[in-house]
Parts: sequence; C-alpha cells; structure tokens
Amino acid sequence: MKVAHYEKIEAAGVEFEGAVGCRMRCLIDQADGAAHFSMRLFEVASGGHTPKHRHAHEHEVFVLEGIGSVLEDDREHPLRAGTCVFVPSDQLHQFRNTGVGPLKFLCMIPHPVSDPGDQCATTCGCG
Amino acid sequence: MKVAHYEKIEAAGVEFEGAVGCRMRCLIDQADGAAHFSMRLFEVASGGHTPKHRHAHEHEVFVLEGIGSVLEDDREHPLRAGTCVFVPSDQLHQFRNTGVGPLKFLCMIPHPVSDPGDQCATTCGCG
Repeated sequence: MKVAHYEKIEAAGVEFEGAVGCRMRCLIDQADGAAHFSMRLFEVASGGHTPKHRHAHEHEVFVLEGIGSVLEDDREHPLRAGTCVFVPSDQLHQFRNTGVGPLKFLCMIPHPVSDPGDQCATTCGCG
Repeated sequence: MKVAHYEKIEAAGVEFEGAVGCRMRCLIDQADGAAHFSMRLFEVASGGHTPKHRHAHEHEVFVLEGIGSVLEDDREHPLRAGTCVFVPSDQLHQFRNTGVGPLKFLCMIPHPVSDPGDQCATTCGCG
C-alpha cells in the first residue's frame, strides 16, 4: 500500500509543446504496482493552460482547487473545485486557468498507452 | 465530453455488508464511455467506515475532505485532504472517518472486474 500526501511528491515542469505554466506530480503509477491506470496531479498557474490537443487515450479529471475552463473542440465548459470531466478518446481538449490562484486537478490515464509517441503520456513519465 | 459538478450526481447508500454511514456517487463510468476505469466519490459520515475486505481489483484513492484512516492489514495510516492511497490487489483494507465532519474521497477502480461476485464493484453499479 502506498499512502502519501501529494505535497510530498515531487512536481516537475510540463515541457510538452503548447503547455504554459504547468507542473505535474505522478501520484500513483506503474512503479507503485498500478497495473491499469495512473493518477497525476496537475497545477496550472494563473493564465496558464495545457496543450490544445487530442490523443487516443481518454482522461478522467477531477478539479481540486481554482477556477478554469476545459475546451471541447470550440466550446468552453467552466471548471471549479468538485467538477469532474471525462475526455473521450480522440477528443480535442485543453484545460485553462481563468482565475487568479492556481488551478489544480487530478488527471487519470489508462496504461500502457498504445501510441509510443504519445507525448501527453510519455512527458509525465508514468504513461 | 462529460463535465459535471459532483454535487449534481446522485448519491446512493452503500449497502455492502460491513459498510457504515457510506454514500457513493458514480462520477464517471462505462455509461459515459469510460472503457478502462471508473471514478466514484465516497462520503463517509463521522464514525462510519467502509467494509474491512480484500478483492482482486486495486483501488486508487484521493482524499478530498475530512480526517480519517486507512487500514493496511492491522496497521493504520492517517488520512487528510490531499492524501493519495494505492491499495494493491488482494490487500486487506478499510477506510474510516475519525473526524467530526464527513470524510470524502475519490476511489477509482479498473473495469471490467474479473470476479462477477465482487460486491465492492457491483454494489456501485459501475464496476
């Protein structure tokens, strides 16, 4: 069993092209014995955003803190603490911080990811 | 894409034997198109607990609110908002609310669950 507060887990900058002001912590991944999916915590600075992109794997997201939006093609949905988001496979999407404080959310992805060139998964080192 | 605040998703009592004061919301599951794993939000009342049990599927948990503990065999680990827990396959475990307010946590499980008699998954209707 792994029990850890997220603040004790190192955060790394997200260098993926199109990401602005994003950091990520891998909370639970294959190294912990998780065979099916990984849990990551993203922190997006005020004015920042994740890349506008699509990929074969789905996302399951839960907003922990802050104010933002998620883009679904050209439509924006508001986000606040307690909002959950399911991003289906191949859906164009982007998460944006529209508030003044950090936007923090959990983002779970299945693994292994079928496309070895899938930067969204490989950048985090836990895909 | 599904975007919903968890408070808009109906909570149901957890009738699983050994559960006390537990309610659950299925935030993201197969009905939403989630092919690999489900996101559920549990709320445990003060003094309540989930069953002390083990099963073949793993759990990935993130504590949102409250104070509690998770049992790993006969060892207790403290929980507070921001704590993540990985419960491996076949690990004896139980979540307890040791505080005065509700204990709320996300609990993700893979699906389909291989054991059709696995109450932990079938009780929630999203396993």
